[in-house]
Amino acid sequence: MSDVTEQGAAEGGGRRARGEGRGAAARRASRTGGGPGPSLPYIQRRIREYEVLDEEGLQLIERNADVVLEEIGIEFRDDAEALDLWKAAGADVRGQRVHFPKGLCRELLKTAPKDFTWHARNPERNAQIGGKATVFAPVYGPPFVRDLDGNRRYATIEDFRNFVKLAYMAPSMHSSGGTVCEPVDIAVNKRHLDMVYSHIRYSDKPFMGSVTAPERAEDTVAMAKILFGDDFVENNAVTLNLINANSPMVFDETMLGAAKVYARHNQACVVSPFILSGAMSPVTVAGTLTQILAEVLAGAAFTQLIRKGAPVLFGTFAASISMQSGAPTFGTPEPSLVSYGAAQLARRLGLPFRTGGSLCGSKVPDAQAAHESANTLNMTLLAGTNFVLHAAGWLEGGLVSSYEKFMIDQDQLGMMQKMAEGVDLSEDAQALDAIREVGPGSHYLGCAHTQANFQSAFYRSPLADNNSFEQWEIEGEKRIEQRANALARSWLEHYEAPYLDPAIDEALKEFIAKRKDSMPDAFT
Amino acid sequence: MSDVTEQGAAEGGGRRARGEGRGAAARRASRTGGGPGPSLPYIQRRIREYEVLDEEGLQLIERNADVVLEEIGIEFRDDAEALDLWKAAGADVRGQRVHFPKGLCRELLKTAPKDFTWHARNPERNAQIGGKATVFAPVYGPPFVRDLDGNRRYATIEDFRNFVKLAYMAPSMHSSGGTVCEPVDIAVNKRHLDMVYSHIRYSDKPFMGSVTAPERAEDTVAMAKILFGDDFVENNAVTLNLINANSPMVFDETMLGAAKVYARHNQACVVSPFILSGAMSPVTVAGTLTQILAEVLAGAAFTQLIRKGAPVLFGTFAASISMQSGAPTFGTPEPSLVSYGAAQLARRLGLPFRTGGSLCGSKVPDAQAAHESANTLNMTLLAGTNFVLHAAGWLEGGLVSSYEKFMIDQDQLGMMQKMAEGVDLSEDAQALDAIREVGPGSHYLGCAHTQANFQSAFYRSPLADNNSFEQWEIEGEKRIEQRANALARSWLEHYEAPYLDPAIDEALKEFIAKRKDSMPDAFT
Repeated sequence: MSDVTEQGAAEGGGRRARGEGRGAAARRASRTGGGPGPSLPYIQRRIREYEVLDEEGLQLIERNADVVLEEIGIEFRDDAEALDLWKAAGADVRGQRVHFPKGLCRELLKTAPKDFTWHARNPERNAQIGGKATVFAPVYGPPFVRDLDGNRRYATIEDFRNFVKLAYMAPSMHSSGGTVCEPVDIAVNKRHLDMVYSHIRYSDKPFMGSVTAPERAEDTVAMAKILFGDDFVENNAVTLNLINANSPMVFDETMLGAAKVYARHNQACVVSPFILSGAMSPVTVAGTLTQILAEVLAGAAFTQLIRKGAPVLFGTFAASISMQSGAPTFGTPEPSLVSYGAAQLARRLGLPFRTGGSLCGSKVPDAQAAHESANTLNMTLLAGTNFVLHAAGWLEGGLVSSYEKFMIDQDQLGMMQKMAEGVDLSEDAQALDAIREVGPGSHYLGCAHTQANFQSAFYRSPLADNNSFEQWEIEGEKRIEQRANALARSWLEHYEAPYLDPAIDEALKEFIAKRKDSMPDAFT
Repeated sequence: MSDVTEQGAAEGGGRRARGEGRGAAARRASRTGGGPGPSLPYIQRRIREYEVLDEEGLQLIERNADVVLEEIGIEFRDDAEALDLWKAAGADVRGQRVHFPKGLCRELLKTAPKDFTWHARNPERNAQIGGKATVFAPVYGPPFVRDLDGNRRYATIEDFRNFVKLAYMAPSMHSSGGTVCEPVDIAVNKRHLDMVYSHIRYSDKPFMGSVTAPERAEDTVAMAKILFGDDFVENNAVTLNLINANSPMVFDETMLGAAKVYARHNQACVVSPFILSGAMSPVTVAGTLTQILAEVLAGAAFTQLIRKGAPVLFGTFAASISMQSGAPTFGTPEPSLVSYGAAQLARRLGLPFRTGGSLCGSKVPDAQAAHESANTLNMTLLAGTNFVLHAAGWLEGGLVSSYEKFMIDQDQLGMMQKMAEGVDLSEDAQALDAIREVGPGSHYLGCAHTQANFQSAFYRSPLADNNSFEQWEIEGEKRIEQRANALARSWLEHYEAPYLDPAIDEALKEFIAKRKDSMPDAFT
């Protein structure tokens, strides 16, 4: 690691070494009407969590999960090291099936942190994961995009960069995420390099690592070390990494391989059963919660076998399946109940919790998309979720990253951030003097208290049209997705890259070039 | 009251005297794919309430409301009787301004019921108001409609009948509501007669009365007596009636006149401050809650001066005002915090609570409309709201009743009703045997537990499209409002009126004709 790089890491990638920084540029862009307001720090919730299970119900699910772990067991597939580690830890391993003595996983998880800092190259963008913090990250994984010309097509690296830029600019998006879309114009075995680079180059918010193969996880760590320095990475979480369980009750070689790399380097794993109830879990909420808890206990405890103290999250991706068509469904009541319950189980376990987002099954950003997303997102906030993947841009069951929906969703994230502030009970907010001043039959529009407070009083949506019908008609009868389209174009026009130390940039490019030269393109 | 009528009342308007009843017809229509499933009884929530204020905060708001009541007072305008009643009750009346000694309103409210039954002519449709019950009613008040041909135009009595029919058919709509739209093709002083008649004739769910003048309230009561019988009406709530405060801190002659009629006949009043924060109340949540509590305490206590024990609700209509355009805004965080807080204050006061609905400012049922509606509706359910006006059909800040939005909203009401059931923790729902049977790496689609439970496991939306993109494309790339349009047409085609005793029908028509003949048409 060169001195230049170390220096860069200490200064958050050198962001503040020159230039005016992001805040001033954002404020200027905002004044001119083209860009967003300044980015907000991660949410520190001042509202309480909503709960759907009482103590008795929670204990019931926990007992049942213990039965699943001990009697049925969890498979750790095609990973001899994992099985050896479990044997050494005292589990009963039969073939690839691991049976866990009661209490073993909980005991192992005592070394996992209750909360931790997810570091960004700009320290102002560091995010707390756990406790009262909530952190939003964009959609993850779609191979397709709905672009700004209305085309549904395969995603490219250009789309990927655009979504990173939009996430960087969105005030209530606290991370630029991970696979914001799959850049299918780049070879499968190389695209992770361009993805990680894009997160570093076009944003200064914290980002996620590649999990599609152990060597890609190693590449992610290597690039993070160029940015932050070796020691910093080994001692701090600079990436969050999505480790899906292959539900029901399986962790496969790929996920285990990635989890081992990240945990070894002290990077955070989000152990997430990916559940479509009725297919990957029982058709009931209680049965689904039991299986989720068992899977997370096994997967999260595994990270502690790799490295005690490695950060790990209790993840849940909950949807249902249509028993008519077999298609996944989103924003319905049952997954909400699952997520509320899982959040409670995670708090009792002392692990940060991931669920939710702005999920939907609709093909277009219409009222179906919005209802399903809003039902999911309101639940996500009130459940007390710490890390929210898919918080913006998700369309069509996760097959599509949509520019328009990204803009609509990020506006809703702003509302959630305001909601999380709860009720201000200060003397000024009580407004007794204003009520005295105005009195019966008058109005508050001009009173001093209103004038002094209105700027901060209400969340202001950049997309909602609340004008009169006549005004709206004159302006072309636009639907919200048309306004979202215009806003996305405007933001991308006003985008300014955050400063990155040229020496770091050069080192990253060199690393990427070397890695790409070392292997032929693979397309599967 | 004739014997025939009394008989009718005893049998719920004679509904079950002949014919197969609503359930069978609905099931048949549903099987043929054209109509909805059978109507569901009102919601009995098995989930807890979400709260945003702690004990200290609640006491603070209550103390401040007492200050408003005592120091500032509430105006009861142009109603000498009201002022005399307050004087006699021990209030300090100065001009039209009533100042309330600390504790007076709370003392008077001790005679108001904590909950009561809102009677329908079909007793199966009776709804509990209060406690753990939640009751949905359609949009109230719009002078315009967005019709099924896409036109925005003045509403007619034909639209009114259609919305009553749709409310009657919607499974999770528990009331046919009140002014589902303003039938502006009928004289202002006569249209209430046609409205009340439409509720009685085209639905058998509970309905709301006219409040636009005391004599129209009297007409409502007279028509209710024809339907239910004199004694029944005097001893039971058969109408819910919207008494808006003229915020800030005024009750006007019209509202007081209607309130007096209804309370005198033991009919329920929903005392609702109509609040756009920043205009009718302080720009802050705490200040708004203070004013709402003061207004409700005064207005609700007034109903007990008229008749001790008359049912009365703590109502809240909360929105904000755009400080840029002056337009009302909906579905934003601040009104949600107001409503959550008001629900807590109502529970402490021991009154049933009304707020929320599916509110929005959008001109079309797009993603803006859906986000705003969903944010409001999720809050409404979790707040523990007892009576939900505007639960379906509201568009454009309440200026428009939309057929398409009605259909989309009523689908969401079904989701809320399912959500309210909470988590089933029965042994069957725990599904341990299913987890044992399926085991790691398999799937639950074909297992016995899934087959036995899937019919009731998940809420099934009649409008959400969760098919593949390709299937959706083949079917014409329809947006949800197009599917909603088709569903509304299909329901209206399949509509069958519930049975109404012809003698009652005749008596109602006679009454209406006599009343209409007694006055010239008025158009303002």
